[in-house]
Amino acid sequence: MMKKVLAELITIGDEILYGQTLDTNGHWMSGALDKIGVKVVRRTTCGDEEDEMLLAFSQAEQRADIILITGGLGPTSDDLTKPCLAKYFDCDIVMNEQARSELEDYMTSRGRKLNTLTRLQAALPEKCEMISNERGTACGMWFNKTGSPAGEARKVFISMPGVPHEMKFMMKEKIIPRLEQEFELPIIYHKIVRLAGIGESWLAEKIKDWEKSLPQHVKLAYLPTFGDLKLRLTAQGINKEKIKSQIDRLIQDLLPLVQEYMYGYDDDSLEFVIGELLKKQNKKLALAESCTGGYVSHRITSIPGSSAYFNGAIVAYQDEVKIDHLNVSSDTIEKYGAVSEKTVTEMAINVKQKYNADYGLASSGIAGPGGGTVEKPVGLIWIACARGNDVETKKLNLTKDRDVNIQIASVALLTLLYKILIKNN
Amino acid sequence: MMKKVLAELITIGDEILYGQTLDTNGHWMSGALDKIGVKVVRRTTCGDEEDEMLLAFSQAEQRADIILITGGLGPTSDDLTKPCLAKYFDCDIVMNEQARSELEDYMTSRGRKLNTLTRLQAALPEKCEMISNERGTACGMWFNKTGSPAGEARKVFISMPGVPHEMKFMMKEKIIPRLEQEFELPIIYHKIVRLAGIGESWLAEKIKDWEKSLPQHVKLAYLPTFGDLKLRLTAQGINKEKIKSQIDRLIQDLLPLVQEYMYGYDDDSLEFVIGELLKKQNKKLALAESCTGGYVSHRITSIPGSSAYFNGAIVAYQDEVKIDHLNVSSDTIEKYGAVSEKTVTEMAINVKQKYNADYGLASSGIAGPGGGTVEKPVGLIWIACARGNDVETKKLNLTKDRDVNIQIASVALLTLLYKILIKNN
Repeated sequence: MMKKVLAELITIGDEILYGQTLDTNGHWMSGALDKIGVKVVRRTTCGDEEDEMLLAFSQAEQRADIILITGGLGPTSDDLTKPCLAKYFDCDIVMNEQARSELEDYMTSRGRKLNTLTRLQAALPEKCEMISNERGTACGMWFNKTGSPAGEARKVFISMPGVPHEMKFMMKEKIIPRLEQEFELPIIYHKIVRLAGIGESWLAEKIKDWEKSLPQHVKLAYLPTFGDLKLRLTAQGINKEKIKSQIDRLIQDLLPLVQEYMYGYDDDSLEFVIGELLKKQNKKLALAESCTGGYVSHRITSIPGSSAYFNGAIVAYQDEVKIDHLNVSSDTIEKYGAVSEKTVTEMAINVKQKYNADYGLASSGIAGPGGGTVEKPVGLIWIACARGNDVETKKLNLTKDRDVNIQIASVALLTLLYKILIKNN
Repeated sequence: MMKKVLAELITIGDEILYGQTLDTNGHWMSGALDKIGVKVVRRTTCGDEEDEMLLAFSQAEQRADIILITGGLGPTSDDLTKPCLAKYFDCDIVMNEQARSELEDYMTSRGRKLNTLTRLQAALPEKCEMISNERGTACGMWFNKTGSPAGEARKVFISMPGVPHEMKFMMKEKIIPRLEQEFELPIIYHKIVRLAGIGESWLAEKIKDWEKSLPQHVKLAYLPTFGDLKLRLTAQGINKEKIKSQIDRLIQDLLPLVQEYMYGYDDDSLEFVIGELLKKQNKKLALAESCTGGYVSHRITSIPGSSAYFNGAIVAYQDEVKIDHLNVSSDTIEKYGAVSEKTVTEMAINVKQKYNADYGLASSGIAGPGGGTVEKPVGLIWIACARGNDVETKKLNLTKDRDVNIQIASVALLTLLYKILIKNN
């Protein structure tokens, strides 16, 4: 069997260990490496300390073939990745002429001047190959540990800036293609089935016989987040078509068991799938958000091209806005309250009409932590979807946590819309 | 000097190494431990493999006093944390009566029934103390490595569920208080100065003399994200009041250099600070979002109690919505385009008036990746803030990346509002 190519990701930064910056780079890099068959065996975060970093480098070298390092490349005094790599590879840091010239071009194109600190960004350890950064001032570095020319290198250290969009661009354009060229990569095949509206335990019960029947080289994982559930099948082999068709067959057996909950595969988010359906049906969407506060609208508009089917939203955070701009009757609010099936129904119908859409979605609830009563506790949320003259509503009893409530209610609202879209497809 | 209490965080899950689930637990736990003076020296993520997990446990035990483990506690076959901990501590997994009873109460209170798989959640390694989970079905586990009673334990393994809101509740209510009681913790003092509207290099130039004057036991870090910049000062000592007053003095020296950009300290987000100012001034806010698509509204409403000052928003994703519901003149859109200073100005003024607010914010731009022209490229975004009869506008030239543009434009819009609020304070 082909030798697996293993990677370790090292994230540098006290700010991460202290919990002051959320690291999302490791997550993204993991996904990108997985797609090309590089197995990430470890992710390590260590602080801005020379000893810690050197230890992490040497331990990673024992475990992995490819060591990818992010962070610690800024121009300021707390950034130690460059000096540590120079020490680890036993070389000096010298001005790199190509880096200097690209840095000047970068700054000039943005109408900015180079200051002394920024200029230092172009000084690099002698033993590295510089990797251009079209998106920022800190270039990347590629070290072959054996010192041998590309093609023979078997331990590779790659350092990248910690700024996510700079790192992503560098990975996509430079590093992934080069890794694919220089390493002989095995085939790992994942397929994710995406479900909404069912809990992990309940799903496991539903599919337990199917799960027991899985061949041993196929792994199954349940990945839940806020009412959204990913079911991931993984197989490894040498013949891509063979493992792919095997996984596809297994999924065909699964589908009848989960049809009611399934909305997509792999990277298809609910908002993406909804967008595709709206485009196909040539229908438009409008939202009236109260407790979800614009978050559903944000998710819808995070999809490129969403202006083709999304007309707009009203975030109605006051009763007056609901009454004056969503035409909710003041009687309804007085009699039933803003958090009620009646109110959310009127919101959904009226925003659809007002914004000239085919589907109207609405939310109203008590996100918390304050504002609850015995009758209407924190976590009580009503959602609605209007289409033509029909309205479907749903009552949610969620948590005491504001963020969690906003997330779960948003997924529930998107799920409600998805089910209605599918029914009318 | 007092011995530092060191922690390592271990996150379990193939889904994280494969890049299919974003781990935010490590981030949150780091912050929580830092506040009580526990130094996180390493964060490690390893896969759902027995050997990998056992190795991670033993390496962590060499480095740290407290080992906090999240994930791998689900009821399904891919969850291995419980069997691995039982193996590591050489004991059996047995039904825990307290866990079973709490699990039944939890399910009953939610009107749900226990199925076979869920019932297994109450079986625990014999050598652990069970930690109640009021928020979910997987309880936590506390192991004293020495086996000695609380108070003498110096190596502690703590396992928690991976579901973020369950883990957070357990940490806050059970684990943090117990760690504070059982360990003698040193004093680490951090203070963060939060700035917006200035880049890292420019700030570093501005404050370089001040930075050089910092005493050696005070560390400085620059933490930038999307136009928002945190400057963190850290000192460690044994006398809290002494290091606190020293850091406070250093910050007093810093403030005159950064006044123009500084908006808060520590956990004060821009949206939080804005909320405090609006409450204090008894003023109301309304938003008209085009390219930011509801994200600014989401940030504003993520603050508990924001209904006290936020009236609502119109997300105007079509010219018709801008014209019909934001009263932008169709002449303006025809002559200058939807992405123009004129349009964004009318949006800000009109939403303020329409939603009966004192401040009106607006955004309009080309978030990308499509929709750009030579004259108006992707990344061109206009923002505006209206107050009384005044409007301030700003033109942004951002990136090619949709997500980044939405993030940076939102921070810029909040920064614009903040500056105007401060001027009128």
